Amino acid sequence: MGRNLGLLLGFCSLIVGVAVADWNILNQRIVENKNGMRITLKNYCEAWRINVELHNIRQFEVVPEECTEYIGKYMSSTQYRVDSEKALEECTIYLSNTFELTGDDKDAWIFDVDDTILSTVPYFKKHTHGGEKFNKTSYEEWVREGNAPALDHTMNLFNYIKGKGIKIFLVSSRGEHLRRATTDNLFKVGCTGWSGLLLRSNEDNGKTVQQYKAEQRKYLMSKGYRVWGMVGAQWTSLLGLPEAMRSFKLPNALYYIP
Amino acid sequence: MGRNLGLLLGFCSLIVGVAVADWNILNQRIVENKNGMRITLKNYCEAWRINVELHNIRQFEVVPEECTEYIGKYMSSTQYRVDSEKALEECTIYLSNTFELTGDDKDAWIFDVDDTILSTVPYFKKHTHGGEKFNKTSYEEWVREGNAPALDHTMNLFNYIKGKGIKIFLVSSRGEHLRRATTDNLFKVGCTGWSGLLLRSNEDNGKTVQQYKAEQRKYLMSKGYRVWGMVGAQWTSLLGLPEAMRSFKLPNALYYIP
Repeated sequence: MGRNLGLLLGFCSLIVGVAVADWNILNQRIVENKNGMRITLKNYCEAWRINVELHNIRQFEVVPEECTEYIGKYMSSTQYRVDSEKALEECTIYLSNTFELTGDDKDAWIFDVDDTILSTVPYFKKHTHGGEKFNKTSYEEWVREGNAPALDHTMNLFNYIKGKGIKIFLVSSRGEHLRRATTDNLFKVGCTGWSGLLLRSNEDNGKTVQQYKAEQRKYLMSKGYRVWGMVGAQWTSLLGLPEAMRSFKLPNALYYIP
Repeated sequence: MGRNLGLLLGFCSLIVGVAVADWNILNQRIVENKNGMRITLKNYCEAWRINVELHNIRQFEVVPEECTEYIGKYMSSTQYRVDSEKALEECTIYLSNTFELTGDDKDAWIFDVDDTILSTVPYFKKHTHGGEKFNKTSYEEWVREGNAPALDHTMNLFNYIKGKGIKIFLVSSRGEHLRRATTDNLFKVGCTGWSGLLLRSNEDNGKTVQQYKAEQRKYLMSKGYRVWGMVGAQWTSLLGLPEAMRSFKLPNALYYIP
């Protein structure tokens, strides 16, 4: 009987597809939302995530406890990868439709570092997928190890843009004291050939990320750069004036940097 | 055998939960994405939808043919409802944290009409869920019937805001010639007590929605209104200067209004 049930379950997974199987437990747990509607935990957590991506939910300190499992699953899922790849595909469509190299070396593109070029998913895996309040000390210890893996879908875009002769600037809210660790990590994963890595100096410490990153764009523009576009994993990386000509937001609901 | 297979399939739906069953067909269809990765059609279409919501995909004229079924399902799903309710819940959280009535009658809130107060889902159900190029004539015929249902989750927020003594303005890209039909429809679903319905006049015709809606906000602000917030179902409704103090985007991937 056990074997038959096993076969039956196996057959069922085939029917619903491997992609769904992972989510079954979250689909089976029924919760009640604020309006008294009975929904699955997956419904609930997906609504939380999409509202982070819509920038309706802001300034959250932690992923809600009941959704850490869901966010962990999403961030290591095929869907996360496909969502990210689609975002980056839009960058190449945009560039192939609009961009023409001027030859004056002033065409530029900006990338965030965390969860854009390098993944922090391994760090957050050890810290309940965003369910714990952000601990700068333990995060910086992890950064110093310099073992963050590259997001290879972003690296494809990085190389495509580099190949077009556009100058690439990496703008990160990591501090200057992490320059060596960051550079080593970038080189280790093959992220080379960028024109600048802009990190937070002491005088940037009191600023919000949005203010700090907007100032970095302003600085680049004051040097004559045309910032054709920017890819980041936080809304606060992309918003604020001056903006890049186009901004592309990668999915990421692990944390919110104010 | 047919009956046994039926029973087996029935058992399988029980296992994966009713919520998932709807998506099974989309989960069974395997497609190859641009990078040669084998993914389900649901993966593919969900990535399309999330990138519309992230505002990475812009200016699309139709929902991709292979995703019309998925978008149709989503727009009539529990998930769409829960996603929308979560967005609107964030409005009440924001208001309860920041808003204090001044008593000068200058506190204001803006709502879009289509897919914010009134649903166009029934119209698009008859037009392949966004898979056909937008036909203004047939859309306006449908608007003139005045039978669009209310999105009752938005109506709850509408009544909450009205109850706080905040003046409500409805700003729509429907034309002035649809004022009577729009007002009748709004009254029919119980949407009353707003202070203004701003529609496109002839002189707005050459403008993009973003320009037109930003001008309406500018107009309201020039009259002394503090626009505490705005809810819309299109990014182009919300972006552009001056912005509301906070903007809330409802999910909607049926169409893009440039």
